[in-house]
Order: sequence, then C-alpha cells, then structure tokens
Amino acid sequence: MELRPLTRAGERFVAIAEQHLDAFRARAREHDENGTFATDNFVDLKESGAVAAFVPEELGGLGLGSIHDWAVGLERIARADASTAIALNMHLGISRTIATGWQAAVARGEPSAAAGSEGMLRAIVSGDLVICATATEPGTDFLRPLTTAKSTPEGFTIDGRKIFVTLSPVANLMAMNVRVSSSEGDQIGFAFIPIDSPGIEPQDDWDALGMRASGSQSVLIRGCKVAEGSIQIAGPWGRWSAGLLMGRTLGNLTLVGAFLGIAERARELAVAAARTQEKPKYDGAIGQAAGVQHLLGEIDIDLAAARCVLSRTAAELDAVLAAHTATPIPLELAHECMRDYQCAKWTVNQNAMKIVSHAMDICGGGAFMSGHELSRLYRDVRAGPFMQPFSPTEAREYIGRVALAAYPDG
Amino acid sequence: MELRPLTRAGERFVAIAEQHLDAFRARAREHDENGTFATDNFVDLKESGAVAAFVPEELGGLGLGSIHDWAVGLERIARADASTAIALNMHLGISRTIATGWQAAVARGEPSAAAGSEGMLRAIVSGDLVICATATEPGTDFLRPLTTAKSTPEGFTIDGRKIFVTLSPVANLMAMNVRVSSSEGDQIGFAFIPIDSPGIEPQDDWDALGMRASGSQSVLIRGCKVAEGSIQIAGPWGRWSAGLLMGRTLGNLTLVGAFLGIAERARELAVAAARTQEKPKYDGAIGQAAGVQHLLGEIDIDLAAARCVLSRTAAELDAVLAAHTATPIPLELAHECMRDYQCAKWTVNQNAMKIVSHAMDICGGGAFMSGHELSRLYRDVRAGPFMQPFSPTEAREYIGRVALAAYPDG
Amino acid sequence: MELRPLTRAGERFVAIAEQHLDAFRARAREHDENGTFATDNFVDLKESGAVAAFVPEELGGLGLGSIHDWAVGLERIARADASTAIALNMHLGISRTIATGWQAAVARGEPSAAAGSEGMLRAIVSGDLVICATATEPGTDFLRPLTTAKSTPEGFTIDGRKIFVTLSPVANLMAMNVRVSSSEGDQIGFAFIPIDSPGIEPQDDWDALGMRASGSQSVLIRGCKVAEGSIQIAGPWGRWSAGLLMGRTLGNLTLVGAFLGIAERARELAVAAARTQEKPKYDGAIGQAAGVQHLLGEIDIDLAAARCVLSRTAAELDAVLAAHTATPIPLELAHECMRDYQCAKWTVNQNAMKIVSHAMDICGGGAFMSGHELSRLYRDVRAGPFMQPFSPTEAREYIGRVALAAYPDG
Amino acid sequence: MELRPLTRAGERFVAIAEQHLDAFRARAREHDENGTFATDNFVDLKESGAVAAFVPEELGGLGLGSIHDWAVGLERIARADASTAIALNMHLGISRTIATGWQAAVARGEPSAAAGSEGMLRAIVSGDLVICATATEPGTDFLRPLTTAKSTPEGFTIDGRKIFVTLSPVANLMAMNVRVSSSEGDQIGFAFIPIDSPGIEPQDDWDALGMRASGSQSVLIRGCKVAEGSIQIAGPWGRWSAGLLMGRTLGNLTLVGAFLGIAERARELAVAAARTQEKPKYDGAIGQAAGVQHLLGEIDIDLAAARCVLSRTAAELDAVLAAHTATPIPLELAHECMRDYQCAKWTVNQNAMKIVSHAMDICGGGAFMSGHELSRLYRDVRAGPFMQPFSPTEAREYIGRVALAAYPDG
Repeated sequence: MELRPLTRAGERFVAIAEQHLDAFRARAREHDENGTFATDNFVDLKESGAVAAFVPEELGGLGLGSIHDWAVGLERIARADASTAIALNMHLGISRTIATGWQAAVARGEPSAAAGSEGMLRAIVSGDLVICATATEPGTDFLRPLTTAKSTPEGFTIDGRKIFVTLSPVANLMAMNVRVSSSEGDQIGFAFIPIDSPGIEPQDDWDALGMRASGSQSVLIRGCKVAEGSIQIAGPWGRWSAGLLMGRTLGNLTLVGAFLGIAERARELAVAAARTQEKPKYDGAIGQAAGVQHLLGEIDIDLAAARCVLSRTAAELDAVLAAHTATPIPLELAHECMRDYQCAKWTVNQNAMKIVSHAMDICGGGAFMSGHELSRLYRDVRAGPFMQPFSPTEAREYIGRVALAAYPDG
Repeated sequence: MELRPLTRAGERFVAIAEQHLDAFRARAREHDENGTFATDNFVDLKESGAVAAFVPEELGGLGLGSIHDWAVGLERIARADASTAIALNMHLGISRTIATGWQAAVARGEPSAAAGSEGMLRAIVSGDLVICATATEPGTDFLRPLTTAKSTPEGFTIDGRKIFVTLSPVANLMAMNVRVSSSEGDQIGFAFIPIDSPGIEPQDDWDALGMRASGSQSVLIRGCKVAEGSIQIAGPWGRWSAGLLMGRTLGNLTLVGAFLGIAERARELAVAAARTQEKPKYDGAIGQAAGVQHLLGEIDIDLAAARCVLSRTAAELDAVLAAHTATPIPLELAHECMRDYQCAKWTVNQNAMKIVSHAMDICGGGAFMSGHELSRLYRDVRAGPFMQPFSPTEAREYIGRVALAAYPDG
Repeated sequence: MELRPLTRAGERFVAIAEQHLDAFRARAREHDENGTFATDNFVDLKESGAVAAFVPEELGGLGLGSIHDWAVGLERIARADASTAIALNMHLGISRTIATGWQAAVARGEPSAAAGSEGMLRAIVSGDLVICATATEPGTDFLRPLTTAKSTPEGFTIDGRKIFVTLSPVANLMAMNVRVSSSEGDQIGFAFIPIDSPGIEPQDDWDALGMRASGSQSVLIRGCKVAEGSIQIAGPWGRWSAGLLMGRTLGNLTLVGAFLGIAERARELAVAAARTQEKPKYDGAIGQAAGVQHLLGEIDIDLAAARCVLSRTAAELDAVLAAHTATPIPLELAHECMRDYQCAKWTVNQNAMKIVSHAMDICGGGAFMSGHELSRLYRDVRAGPFMQPFSPTEAREYIGRVALAAYPDG
Repeated sequence: MELRPLTRAGERFVAIAEQHLDAFRARAREHDENGTFATDNFVDLKESGAVAAFVPEELGGLGLGSIHDWAVGLERIARADASTAIALNMHLGISRTIATGWQAAVARGEPSAAAGSEGMLRAIVSGDLVICATATEPGTDFLRPLTTAKSTPEGFTIDGRKIFVTLSPVANLMAMNVRVSSSEGDQIGFAFIPIDSPGIEPQDDWDALGMRASGSQSVLIRGCKVAEGSIQIAGPWGRWSAGLLMGRTLGNLTLVGAFLGIAERARELAVAAARTQEKPKYDGAIGQAAGVQHLLGEIDIDLAAARCVLSRTAAELDAVLAAHTATPIPLELAHECMRDYQCAKWTVNQNAMKIVSHAMDICGGGAFMSGHELSRLYRDVRAGPFMQPFSPTEAREYIGRVALAAYPDG
C-alpha cells in the first residue's frame, strides 16, 4: 500500500530517488548535528538527474508532469533525509513552472518566448541552475509581503527580509514574493533574482529544531536593483486569486510527501525494533507483546489514512490540471483545490507526528538519544504544521468557509 | 472529492443507486421508527436492476466487477438509508461469488457447471432470488461457528442459531457458516439453504439501536436437513485460510461504504444548517460563526481521510484480484488485504462517528429530537465497529501482527 | 478513585441517592422505551428527602451546601437513570437559590424577606413544590430570549415558547428567562410562574434520541399574566454579567455529573462483560484478550481524567463561593469560573462519549440491541454537548478569549 | 486553577521553588545547547533548602510530607527547567524514604536505627549529600535488572550497566536495583553506593533529544565491592510486590509534575504570543484571530484535565499513605495506586505533548528555531512517556488488568 508512481516519468523519478537513499541516510546524522546544508546530496541529485525531473525529455530532463509522482519521489527521499526532500521541492516547484511555460510557448509557436525558458531548463539539466523560493517573512503572511519593490526608472529596488529560504546555500536563483506599489494600489509580485546580486545577503543563520540540513537561512535584501522584467505581477496585495491559490497548492502539496516519508521511515524503525529488540520479560523480541502489536496497529491505521489522502488528493489535482490546460481554473475550483490540499496536509501532518511518537514508544528509551534516528525524525516531523499557507490556527476555519462557499478574500 | 466509480459498469450502478435516494429517504424515518424492514426499497432495487449489479451483462445484469464501485454505490444508498445499503450488500456479496463462479466455468468450458450458476443469476435478474448471508452467532466468532452440520446418509442436519441475519425478511436463500464434523477434525462449511426450508425459523426479533430497517433478525435452525452439495467446505474450524480471509475482506470492505455514506449525509445536513439556521446573536446564519466554520473544517478533514482511505483500499483490492485471476492468492497477501481493509474500516468508522457527532453540534439541540435525521444517523453509524471480523478489541493487534508477519492462525 | 462527597450533608445526600439506584434502574428501560416521564422516581425522591437536599436542616432539609457534593449525588443517580438525574438538577438548582436567599435574609435579620422563601422551602420538604427551569428557545441563545414580558398596569404579559423544559411534567413552578422591554433598553428577566397558570401550555411533545424519561417537553406561553414581583431583572438583554455567568455555572456544572455517571455505569457494564462473557476463541472470558484489556485501560484513563476534572472544578467553585459570601464576585472571576466549568464539561462529555463507545466495543454486538442498557447510555450520553451555555461550536473560542482576558460581552 | 500546595510545608517548598525560576530559566538555554548538567541550579537548590524538602523540621529541613505538594513544587521548577526538576526528583524520592525511616525509628524508640538516617538527613541539609537513583538498564525492565550482585565473604560484588542515571554528575550516593542470586532464587535488591566507590564508572555520555541538562549519563559498574548491609532485598526477581509497586508509584508520580510544568510554561508562551505578536492581516495581535482563540481553548481544556488528574491522584495517594502508617498496604491496593498513577501519567503526558505542539502552532515558525524556548519544551516533553514503569506499550494493558483484578505477577 505504499505510494507508487502513476506515470512512466514518475517511475523514473521515483527509481532515481530510491537510488539515493543509502547515501543520504548515511550523511543525515552529521548534517543534522552540525546544521550543515546537505551540499553533497545535491551533487548527487544533479548527477542522477533528479533536479531535472520537470525538464521535458527533449531538453534532457525526466519529463515529469504528475504532481502525484512528484510527491511520491519526495516521500522516498524523506525516508532518508527530509531536509533534502524539502530543499529539492523548492527547486522542483519553480522548475516545473518554467517547464510548463516553455511547453505553452512552444505550443503557441512563440520561439522567442520559449528560448528564455529553454536556456534555464538546459542549465538545470547541466546542474548550473538551482532555484530556491521563499514566501515567508517574519510577522506577516504570504499574501501580505512587507518586502517592497519600489519602481525606479531602471526597474525596481527591493528591500526586505525573507526567512526560511530553504535550499538557498546552493541556489543561484531566488524566487520571492514582494509588495509592488503602483497607482492602482499595492500588488503582489514575484521576483526572480540571481542570488549573487548586489543587495542579496544570505545570513547563514539557520539553526532550528529540525530540518537542520535544509539550509533554510534568512536572506536580507538591501537596495537590490532589478530590471523591470524580473518581477511578475500576480494580483492585488492581500487578496487571493485563482493563480495565487493554485500556485501555493501546487508548490506545497508535494511538501506533504516529505512528512509522509518521515512517517514511513519511523514505521520501518518501529517494525525492526519490534522484531529484534529483546527483553527477558518476553523471553525474546518485544514484538511478541500485545501492547507493541497494538501500537504497530495504530501506526498502520494512521499510515494508511495518510498515504491514501495524499495519493488521492494529488491524483485529483493532476486531473484538475489535465482538464484545464486550455481554460483558466475558476476561483471557486482553486479554493476547492486548496481546501483538498489543506485537508490532506492536516491528516498527513497529524498522523505523521503520531506515528513518529508511537515508533518512539515502541523503540523505548534508546529512541530518546541524539544518536537514534527517531530523535531526528521527531524534530523534523514537527516542521509540517508550519508549512504555509494556513497554519493549524487557520486551516480549519478556511476549510469550513470553503464548505460554505464563503471564500475568504485574503 | 466525493467517491466516483472507476468503471463503466460502476457508473451505471452508481447512477441507478442515486435514482433511489429520494424515495428511500422519504421512507427511512418510518421504517426506523417502527423497526420495519424496508421491503418497498427492495421492490425498487429489483426494478432498477441494482440487485443484479454483479450479474454479467450477457445474462441481463449490470456486469459490475469492481469492488471499488460496489462500495461507491453502497455509499450513495446509505446517504438515504444505511439499513438498505447494508442489506443490499449481503445479497451483492453472494451474487458476486456466483457470478465469478459462472465466469470461471464458462472460461473453463464447463457448461454444466455454469448452468447452475446461470439459473441463479437469471433468477436474480428477474427478482425471484434474493440472498442473505450470516456469519454471526452469539458467544463466538466467525472462525468458530457453533451451528453444527452433522453428516447423515442423505447429507447434513443443521442445528444452531444465527444472529444479525440482515436482509432475511425478503431473502429466499440464506448463506451461512457452519461447523462440519469430519474425521480430519472439524471444518468450516458454507451452507446455502432456501429460507423456507423446514427447520429454518426466522425470529422476527430485530429491535436495535440503529440500522432498524435492515431486518437483521435472528434465525433458529432446528434439525434442518440439507443435501450434501449444499455445503462447501472452506477449511479447518478455527483457522484462517487465504480463501476465508479474502471472502471476509471482499464481502465486508464494501460495508464500510455504508458508513461513509452516513458521514456524507451528516455533512450535507451540517452545511445546510450552517447556511440556513439563524440566531439573533449572529444577526443571520450560524455559519458566520468561526466556531461553526471550525467544526465544518474538522468534518471535511475527517471526511477527506475517510473517502480517500476507502477509495484507495478498494481500488488496490481490485488490482490484487485482477492480478490473481489465474493464480491463487497466497496466505500472506490475503492477510495484507485483510489488514488494509481493517485499516480502512477503522478510519472510516471512527471518522464517520466523529462527523455525525460534529454535525449534531452544528445543528444544535434540534438534532437531538427523534424526528431529526441526524438522530437516526447517530444510531446507525454506531453499527460500524461491530462489523466482523475484528472488532475494535481485536483490530489493532491483528494489524500489528500482520506488520510483523506474525499472522494469527485463527 | 470514584467521586466521594466532601461534606457531611453531602454524605447524606449521596447515601440517599445510592439507595434509589436499584429501583430507578429497574424502571429505566420502560420509561426510555415509552418516552414517559419517571414520575415514580420523583415520588421516591420526595419520600427520601433528596428533593429537599438544599433546604436547610432547620427547615427539614438535608442542608446541602456544596456544589461538589451536589454533582456527586447526581453522578450516582445517573448510573441508574440519567434522565432522572438531569430532571432533579433543575429543581435542585432553583431550590438552592431559594435556600441561599433565605439564609441571607435571616443573616440580615429580615424576617419578612425570609418568610416567603421559608414557605417555599417547607413546601419542597413536604413534596408540595417541585420547580423546573428553562432557558432554552428555538433559534436563539440564553442571553437573547425571544419570549417577551410586556409591561402592563397589573404586571406583565408573557408570550413565547420554551423548549427542553425538563422536569415540567411534575413541576408546579416554572422558572424561565424572558425579554423585558424597558425604557433603558431590553432586559433579561427571570420569571417564576405556577405551571398551572392560564397561558402556560405544556405540549407533551418530548420525543428525543435520549434522556427520554426527563420530560423535556416544550411549553407554549400565551398571554400569561403575572404580577410585577414575579419577574426579577438580571441585566441587559444580550450581555453577560457576573450574576448571569455565575448562575449558569452553578446550575449547569452539576449536570456534568450526570454524564460522568453514565460513563461510570458504562464502565461497570464493560468490566462485567469482560469477566463473564465467554468465547471459544479464548477458552473462557473475553477479558483474557489483550485487546479487551487495552480498551478497559483506555476507559479507565478517560474516566480518571473525567472524575478528577469534575471533582476539582466543583471543589474550586465551592471555594470561590465560600470566599465571596459577603462580597460580590467580579466579572473577571465569574468568567474564569465559567471557563473552568466549560473545560470540565468538555473533557467529561468527550470522555464519557468515548467510554460508552468503548464499553460497547467490549460488550460486542449485543450492546447494539435495544434491550441492552448500553444502547440507552449511548443515546443519553449524547445530550451532554448540547447543554448550555457554550456548545462545542462556541466553547473553545470562549475559553480562548478568557485566557486572553478578551471576555465576550454576550 | 493552577496547582497549589495543600500543606504548610508544601507552601514553603513551593514558595522556595518559585524563587528559583528566573535564575533557572536564564540558564536553561545554555545547558540545553551544550548538554551540560545544571550544576549551578543545584548550588541554588542546596542554598535555598529545596534539597532538604523532606528532611524533618527538627533536623533542619522543610518537613515536607505530602506527595501532592512535592509534585506541585516540581511542576513549578519545570516551568523554568524540566531537567532540573526531574534531577531533583531523584534526590527527593530517596531522601523521603530516608526521612520516613528516621521517623519510624524514632516512633519505635530505636535511637541506633535512627542515628544512621539522621546523619544522612543532616548531610542533606548541609548540602553534603545528594542522592541519585536508577532503575533502568538497556534491554530489560525494572523488575528484571541484569546488573548482578554476587555474594562474597565480605558482602557483594556488583557488575552491570545502568542508564538514565539522572543527577549523577553531582550526586555522591547512588541507589539502584540489582539482581541478587540466592539459594531461594534470584532476588531484587536495592544497593546504596557512594558514587566515588571503586568500580563505579560514570560515562559522561548523556546526549539526548531533551532533558539535556539532567545529567542522565550511563554508569558502568565493574567489580564494585559493597558491604552486606548496603543492599536491601525487596522480593523475588521479576515479581511485583506491594512494596515495589508503592516505591515506583511514590517515586515517579511526582515526575509527572515536571511534564505538567512544561505544559504550563508552553501555555504561558502561547498566551504571551497571542497578545503581542502582530500581523498586518489582523491589523493587530494574532490573538484576535478566532483560530488562535480556538487553539488556546484546546490548550486550556487539556491543561485543566492534566492539572486535575495529577492533583487529585496525588492527594488520594497522600490519603492512602495516611491511612496506612501502621498497617502494610495490601497488594491489591498497591496495584490500584499504581493504576491511578498510570492513568494520571497517561493523560498528563499526552495532554502536555499536545499543549506544547499547540503552543508552537500559535507562536508560528519562530517557535521552530533553536533559540525559541518552545523548541526546547517540545524536546523535553517527549521524555514523559519513557518514564518507567509501564511505557505506552504496556500501560493500557496493565490498567485494564487491574480493572479486572487480574493483576500481573511481573
């Protein structure tokens, strides 16, 4: 019942992901302990072609298209190192957008529009381009960035501070949301900026409870000047649009896969312990104890629900996208996609946290030691509920409003 | 995100099921109040062809094959009347077995073997044959029936008592498990007996908390004489076999659909109340209250998990069956199928109970009145955890043992 | 660890309550089945003096003073018949108010003020006075009654409709909240009206999921004329005051005891079943099964939390009252008392519902039959969350606001 | 509703505990980060007299007697540093045993027996004696220690390995359970050994997920020779006795207080964040969001249950002890005390973990940073379920068996 890819390209992607697991797992403890970014993992991911998953086959990539299979691949990687999984997710999300842009331009017969994307996609294949993304700032939410892009005669000057800029230590391009002042009121824009641009100042300050190898440092942006074309306007500041909803859903649903992967790994460790850890009380392995069997049962119940809700939600999202290649997605449907993602996120996150905790119960006090993999999983898995948009303080109300068709404006 | 059929025959089955909803819902309150079997619903189900869902198209049926779609159709019916859904399930389960037997005989080129099945299938189409099944007795479990079939020169004489014989008020054939004494030790047998046989004494004693229109009376069997061919031996008494495991999984997973259907209906009622019930406190509909939105959010989170775990589990079971048309299913795989069913059953039942309760919270004190549909749903939904095999006192341990490949013998 | 009274008078009250259990339990099934009010139980409660629990000893009562012990007595009665427990609670709540009024008047040396109360208290002792109370109407909440008392030269004329008027079939006085129009804006008033007054029309329409013997019919009030002194003004319509908060807390916290009592009884039935129900599978009682032990463990964990949170909350409320005999309770403290009651109510209700459901799991399919006591407990226990004020759609937000000292006005 | 001491001595103990909070909190982050034992805190605890809480007043201590108040004091300390709370608990548990022994000897009029205890108690007052205790070894449980005490002509030679020897870095006496071989079969013994004895080798290897300042290193015991009087026999190896049950209950129930203290602190941080953290979306503090209020409500519901179950369980245990000063506690009652402790432990631990997680949800992504106090609380609180005896794999079954009076032997 574990998740399996549904497409050919997905099978390739997942097979590649699985090849990395041993090496990533071997490195995970040290990166976690030191809080170092898993640069070595990204060397491997470039070499295997995983970073080019969304690049079309004709440009040298894997030709991945399915959101479902993207999530499955991340789930696999997270079994070894969830930090690497979420870092890769950032890059894959943006590269998918570039790839769909290229395909649309080719389909429209606009070679010049395609050319720019093609260059980026080829750079991704060669390993020369890694893209990180951030939409998080202290003290505000995704729809209300306080990082400001001021119009200048040459383009824009950007100032602000971004946090949780996962993958940034090895990225050379950074995507972020900004507030663009304009005569029609403030707008949300997305800026794409080379990370070595003047004014982009990574802070090397990532020191967190978990996901310690994800390089999610903060980045100061001070007087960073960009050309006009570097910022795409996405709609009014503080308001949801179908595009913003779908963007957040597509980029973040797959993150849920990482937390499922953590749960999968915790379950493996619990089963192994139940089979091999012995106690005089049981005159053999602890798995003979009914209480251990009960907790394993609870783990598998929670795991089945988590797997299924992620799998079906992602597959349904693929179906929505397939049905809207030529027509825009209406706002209501975009809210429903976001709602389905929020439901899946809630169950997977909550169940994953329970599964890790139950696995610790089964493994016993040893799981509390820093050297035990479960103590890392316990820290990593807690990142799930923080993932935006809609934290646990917001998600239930949002879901309820969608049920009532009382969609929030922002 | 509601469940949808995956096959053409399933689409027909579900469409037919949906046509019945208004009529069934209109009758549900009265049957529930009086504890009368919903005979009128079965008149309709015969007329619409729903009872012949599993009969091959060439014999006049719908040609249904998918377990998944079977569950979806039951889910729909349960939105109107869960008693009717679980009663229909009994009949469909046995008729599916007959249909697959007919198809196998035809495929093997054994017309005489096919003839018997064909007669039954045609009788199902004409509405002349309705089959109920029971595997429940007081004070024992499915693997250890105390109802005894004693060998006689002419066949067997059966004595015992069966309970929860759902659908029996309108059935004319009854399938049940019995204990067959033999020289190699006791065996489990399945007996198929016309319900008007001498010695079959329905007790007309169904008076329960919920599922009151399901006709789940007890049946005394006293000195009932059957021919030798009426009993099929399924294996040693008290022991699981692949066949017994798959039989219980196939026949009961779809029952879970009925409890999902109850949850779906409860959610409909909650959303309607949130939109239309007004209070001076809110100067309008109660759905404006954040607390109502929160509970609706909890309902939709639980509903999404319930839908997905049932859908994926049933689809996977279809895949297992498709991969084993020619080869037997190994014991280990049969346990894994049972395990997956148990996981789905747990989540759907628990979530459905929560959803009904939350819907009552939203609808307020009115939902506590006997005339309110939710008060029936609250009683009906509680039947779920009792469904065999593996009650909540047993399921977690069983699932845990499968995880450890420490399969219980019986 | 079961609850025990903390005062001498409480010991007497609880001992009396326990003497009734056998008789009440013997009658419970029939009243439940027929939806008849348990008039016979109230004959007994008058005879035993339980109805005069709060009447001071010098006036012939038990002299009960402790909220804690009141809750304990109700808990005991609910083990036999929760309907009777909640019906008695109505009467005890009002009679306690009368008793404290009498004591205050005596303490102030105002014999004429004491005289009226004394008459009522003596009538309670003689069994001539039973008082019911209602603060519920369809489509509104406690603070916003739509039942209107219009000022007339002779007093007031009252029109409206009250629901859930528990105990009304045997009560001869009815207390209720009404909306009193005045020049300073609408007020909430409490009216005390003989139930046989012209214009008071009990509807004999109580037909509910559970608590079927509680007589909680609706009462129409049509042109009911009362003297001016019959209505006490409690504050502005739609606004909380310390008095209203304390009144609701004092009158309703003890109701929680009834739901604890249901849980206590469910646990007794589960333990008895575990000890005595046998299955061939276990070659003896089902209590040998680890899965049954696990569920009993879950029951006792939930029961311990429910007992303790009710016991400590009620004892703390007694301490607050003892500290404020001479000084009024500030609004903030009144909100905190209400908050503590809401926390206790939530845990007891949720745990009681879980305990009943787990007990059903242990007892098996027999518990689903109408004749099984657990099937009544399952219906009765669901009444808990509906108890006002603050349903599950409102309670969490209210509690959170008190934590932030952002007290809601109304 | 926070816990308050019930005795005079308890008031003193709690007041002293509260004086330490600011200093302990200021040191907590650094000890946590470096995994250093909080030696400075123990300097303070000696100075304030907290380490002498159980020493009778006539010997210079606080004269604490109440288990309840002991738990309350630990709860307070854990608000600042849970590591220090659990370390102090080890010492207090053993010193309480010494104090009750002294009191009994004095009461019996046996000055020589009292003299030894008196010396130790005075050493505790002067700060010269700190005692740690361990009953944990890898791969076995409390009743089946593998550390062996072999009889020699001079006494015993002990070999083995103990883990989780909390407080050992500053202790000068170590109490531990050992396996003593004897002609009547193996026995459990308790050895009291100066920690600087030859053969006692602390490993300085404490590096854990949480409770990092508790100094819970492992200790090798190699050929450690002790005099015969240093080991007290407690009963057969592998079997519960009333004494062992009560010893474990008394020593560990109060540990639960530490986890309640963590929850109390997490709640404080959540309330402070809700009041002060601002977001443009809310045009003010996030506490205005209904979703934040809902989560605060869930926190307070869980906290109320946790407080009450610990308070009442501890107070009941005090009552049991008071009723058995002259008579031994029967085995059944000892199991019931253990059961009540297990119920309290379960609810407090589970609720505390939920509360910390909900507090993180409210505080947002900042709470995931290593510098945020909640990230430490999240790690510390996870230690709770590991506390012996009866992990979550064992507790429910144990509690269920006590309910059935089917007490486990061992």
